[in-house]
Order: sequence, then structure tokens, then C-alpha cells
Amino acid sequence: MSEPTLGYLDPDFVAIMDETMELLRYVFNTKNRLTIPISGTGSAGMEAALVNSVEPGDKAIICVAGFFGDRMVDIAERAGATVARVDAPWGSPVDPEDVKKAVRDNPGAKVIGIVLAETSTGVLQPLDEIAALAKGNGMRIIVDAVTALGGVDVPVDRLDLDVVYSCSQKCLSCPPGLAPITLGEKATAFVRDRKTKCRSWYLDLGLIQKYWGPERVYHHTAPANMIYALNEGLRIVKEEGLEARFARHKAAQKVLIDGLQGMGLKMVVNVPYRLPSLTTVYVPEGVDETAVRKKLLDEHNIEIGAGFGVFKGKIWRVGLMGTNATKADVVHLLAALKDVMGR
Amino acid sequence: MSEPTLGYLDPDFVAIMDETMELLRYVFNTKNRLTIPISGTGSAGMEAALVNSVEPGDKAIICVAGFFGDRMVDIAERAGATVARVDAPWGSPVDPEDVKKAVRDNPGAKVIGIVLAETSTGVLQPLDEIAALAKGNGMRIIVDAVTALGGVDVPVDRLDLDVVYSCSQKCLSCPPGLAPITLGEKATAFVRDRKTKCRSWYLDLGLIQKYWGPERVYHHTAPANMIYALNEGLRIVKEEGLEARFARHKAAQKVLIDGLQGMGLKMVVNVPYRLPSLTTVYVPEGVDETAVRKKLLDEHNIEIGAGFGVFKGKIWRVGLMGTNATKADVVHLLAALKDVMGR
Repeated sequence: MSEPTLGYLDPDFVAIMDETMELLRYVFNTKNRLTIPISGTGSAGMEAALVNSVEPGDKAIICVAGFFGDRMVDIAERAGATVARVDAPWGSPVDPEDVKKAVRDNPGAKVIGIVLAETSTGVLQPLDEIAALAKGNGMRIIVDAVTALGGVDVPVDRLDLDVVYSCSQKCLSCPPGLAPITLGEKATAFVRDRKTKCRSWYLDLGLIQKYWGPERVYHHTAPANMIYALNEGLRIVKEEGLEARFARHKAAQKVLIDGLQGMGLKMVVNVPYRLPSLTTVYVPEGVDETAVRKKLLDEHNIEIGAGFGVFKGKIWRVGLMGTNATKADVVHLLAALKDVMGR
Repeated sequence: MSEPTLGYLDPDFVAIMDETMELLRYVFNTKNRLTIPISGTGSAGMEAALVNSVEPGDKAIICVAGFFGDRMVDIAERAGATVARVDAPWGSPVDPEDVKKAVRDNPGAKVIGIVLAETSTGVLQPLDEIAALAKGNGMRIIVDAVTALGGVDVPVDRLDLDVVYSCSQKCLSCPPGLAPITLGEKATAFVRDRKTKCRSWYLDLGLIQKYWGPERVYHHTAPANMIYALNEGLRIVKEEGLEARFARHKAAQKVLIDGLQGMGLKMVVNVPYRLPSLTTVYVPEGVDETAVRKKLLDEHNIEIGAGFGVFKGKIWRVGLMGTNATKADVVHLLAALKDVMGR
């Protein structure tokens, strides 16, 4: 990341871009040509996914089972879509039956949006049935893989997911600032054939892909150093191998959950839906949750997440993502947590 | 930049954010509270400026005297504005008389957009008269300072400019990836009181300012390492002092122009409008301009810019920005240029 900044058309930089796309295809499990990092954080990835997938007036079905599902609704509406929500309680996955009903009730809807790994709840959403519903009804499916990519399977090609985006700083363990995104053939064709201009110029994939493709048409100055960092982070992922990485995330979470339950704490999410990279646990009665987090940070240099939205003040969110999804880090955390909670 | 990534609400990081805002106020010459870096490149700054300054149907007058003026028009239209253009030939500044006419012809227009330092032509646009026109007619003025900030005076408070944005990688000499932006009182009030949601969620300053302000409401994960880089770059600017820095840019350009003219080359821009940080020069007849740039890069490790748009193949654009605006670097470039051109 600290290497000298190369110009956005420097042949040496162009080679790094091409390699980064190839590495992104590896972590996304896809052959999609249009697989690039958006020059913004994961939320820019969400906006890029939505604003490039709808035209004003298009109907969109958005699944909401947490904070980031709500954000998808907000962004889709700003992009001009008419949104039909499919809600599920925070801490639970979305029920495919509810999606089926929404599809029936909203004929002509163009897209389904859903969060694979809900960072606000720790739920890993099963995608097979909902993706099949989209495919069976001629709709495109947009998947948020922000807390998933590089930590759990993101089956882009297996389920023919149309648009999938993520971020650099979670399971890829790079600095924050980039949002990997991949578009399948139908989504790419939509970008190409849309009748109205994309509402965002900065995130217009019709323009951006001409810079990342052989045309090399200038769009915006690429954040070169961030791309170096992503490139290196992706190489590390590939060196380890996706399967080994997923297994490591699962194994680390098992140690964590065993430890937390051993301390008498209760998990938020039921077994089959637990997201390996982010574990949610209820704050025990009578515990000052802010003080615990502050002490963990001040005395042990460990940061765990607060609950927000419905879960504000009620849960902790423990990220085991990328480099820190190890037994050693979990043992360290558990010891620190026992110390600050006096258990 | 390579320091460990801090969390977006880590108290140590919040202190860096506050200091960065203070340093940005210094380089922007402003007391504006809302002075922050947008989490994207300079073009994201342009989009943030426009999408936060208009509601669908608002009339905007945009001055176009080069590539980035055209981009302003495109982005303003995507944000829902109805645009009246004020054109000037590439290589010239915009004529205030033409702007006056546009103001007269477009009653009710809400904003004037203009590029202070046009990167595609090397023109430094005088702003006093045009800013006064905006002020005198109750309009807000949006100023692109991408190739200006830190290299030439950007008189935000002196002219009461409403929205001004820039980038990190030009005269501030940081890596690309952030877009400093500042909003005056009227622009901030517009953001607060608008009747429709900003079309971009990622760039919605109404939301973003609650994260950069005392509320610290999460919006998106701040690109921490990029902000470290910007913070350090701004400290270096302040250490040198703005006046000394502006003088250095001017002095370096004088050496460059004397050298180029000594080689028989012709300048694109007339004397009073020459942008110190970016000098444009015609490619002499019979010279293969691509070969010259390639040789400069391959043999001398120096990159100069090609012309684009109207100037494609016809000019070179020589950036003397931030750290490289020195006599020593200019002497080096001139020697290399003589070598590859065989002069």
C-alpha cells in the first residue's frame, strides 16, 4: 500500500488491475467478466449494485431482516425503484415462502435484493430457494456479501447470482475503501441496454467497465494504493485457498461459541443460520455493555461491536474475519472478556 | 497509511478525523463547519457537490470550458437538474458576460457550477465576478477545485463560495481515493431543508455529516488508512504554509514555461489564465506525441499527460503539483524531454 502511486493508465498499474480482477473472480467463485473493485467502501458497492440494476419506476422486492436490508430499501428507492419489502425478525433469516408470496403479489418486479450475511444480526441467509425463485420468474437477484466474501461461500456461478458486492475490510482483511462487485450476463446486459442514464455517474458501471476493460477509457482516477492493498490481500486468500479459509472461520467460531456458552451467555441466532464470520451474543442481564467494550479496547486492545437498530444495547457482535479468525485470537478474546466481566 | 486500521468509532480514530477536518479548513481557507473528505476520488467529490445541491427539476447553470465542465453537466442532469450551459472554447476561461446573460435568461436557477482549475486545458478561471453574480442573484455557486487545492488560492470564505470540492492526489500530494469538500451555511441549509431525498445515499451529506459531527452516527465504514494519508499530507501543507506553497508552484511553472518556450514550443493558455499546477503546451508539428510520453516514462520515469477531448493528440499536460512543483524536478523534466525529442 505504501509503494509509489502509479498513474491510472501506467502499464504497470494496468497489469495490477488485470491481476486484481482475476483474483476477485477466484474469491467470487465466478467467471463473470465484469468483476472489479468499486472505488468506495462496501456501502458504495451496495449503491452501485442497486443504481445499476433498476431504472426509475422499476419494481424491486427487497428482503429485510436487519439494518443492511433496510439500507438496501432506502438506496433502491433513491435510485427510483418502487420497493416491495419482505420482512423477517432481526436474528432470523428471510422465509422463502414470504418471498414467493411477494413475487406473486408483485408481477413485473425486476429484481430481488437480499443480504447474504447480515452484519447487524449475525444471520447467514440460505440463498438457494430465493435465487431459484428469482430465476424461475425472470428476475435478477442482487446479493450483499459484505460480511461473507472470503469467509463463507458466496456461490455466484453455482446459483447464477446476477449482482454480488462486498467490501475490502472484512473477511478479505484489507483496509476499508474498496467494494468488490461482480455482474453476470443478464445484469451486464441490463447496464448496456437501459433506457435512462444511471442516476449515479461515479458508480455507473457502463462507464467504469470501459476503464477496467481493454478500452481503458478514463473514468475517474483509480485509487491505486488501495488497489495494491486489495491485490495483496486477495493473493493471501488464494494462497490459503477458499475451502481452507471457510473451514478456519467455522472452526474459530466453534471455539468462540463454546467459550461464550461456557460463560453462561446466550446466542442470538439459531444453529443452522449462524454466520461464521460474525457471532452475535446477548449481553447478560445487569452488565454495562458499553463499559465492557471500552475496557476490552482500552485494556486488551480488542474491539467488539455494539448492537444497533433493534439490538441496540442488547447484544454484542464479535467479528472473526480473515486474519483474526483463529483459535489463538478467540482464546485471547475469551480470556479478556472473562477478565473485564469478572467471571 | 500503513499504520494499523482503526475502527470507525475508535476514539483514537475520531481524534484523527477531527484534526483532519481542522487541517482541511486551513487549506480551504474557510471556517465552514462541514468540511470533510468524501470517501471516493475527486469525481465522487463532484457528484457529492452536485447531488447535494439540487433537487429534481431545479435549474442549474453550468460553465463548460473543458472536459470537467462537461462532466459537471452530465452529473447535474443525473441528479435531476435542468441544465443551462455557458460554453467557452477549450483553453480559454469562461466569460462573466456570458454567465450574466445565462442568469438573465434562466430566472429561478438555483446554482452555478464552474471549474476553477480545468485539468483538461490548464486554465485557471477567475472567479470573483462569477461568484458575485451568483451572490447577487440569490444563487449558490459550486466550484471544482480538483487541480487547485493546495497549489493555488481557493478563496472559499473570501468569495463566500457555497460548495467547493477537490481530490487528494493532486496538489495535496496524497494517494488518490478521497475528495475533500466544504459547504457554506446556505449549502448546508439546503442539505438540511431539501424536500426530496438526495439521489445518492453514499454521498448524502445530510447523513455523512452526522458521522463527522458530534453525533458520530454510523454511515459507512471510514477508509481509515486513506484518512491517515490525507491527514499527514495536510500537515505537510500546513508546515510549508499556503502562501509559500502557492509561490513555489508559480516559480516552478515559470522555469518550465521558459524552458519549453526556449525549445520552441507554444503554450496553449494566455498569460493571465495559466494554471500554475498544470501547464499545457502544443505538441510540435511532426512529433509523435505518444512515443515521446512513452519514452519519458520508460527511460526517465517521468509521466506527463496526454491531451483529451478537443485536445486529443494535440497537446501535452504537465503537472507540477505539490511535492513535484520544484525547480529541480522541472530541470530534470526539461532535460529528459530534450533527450527524447532529440532537441
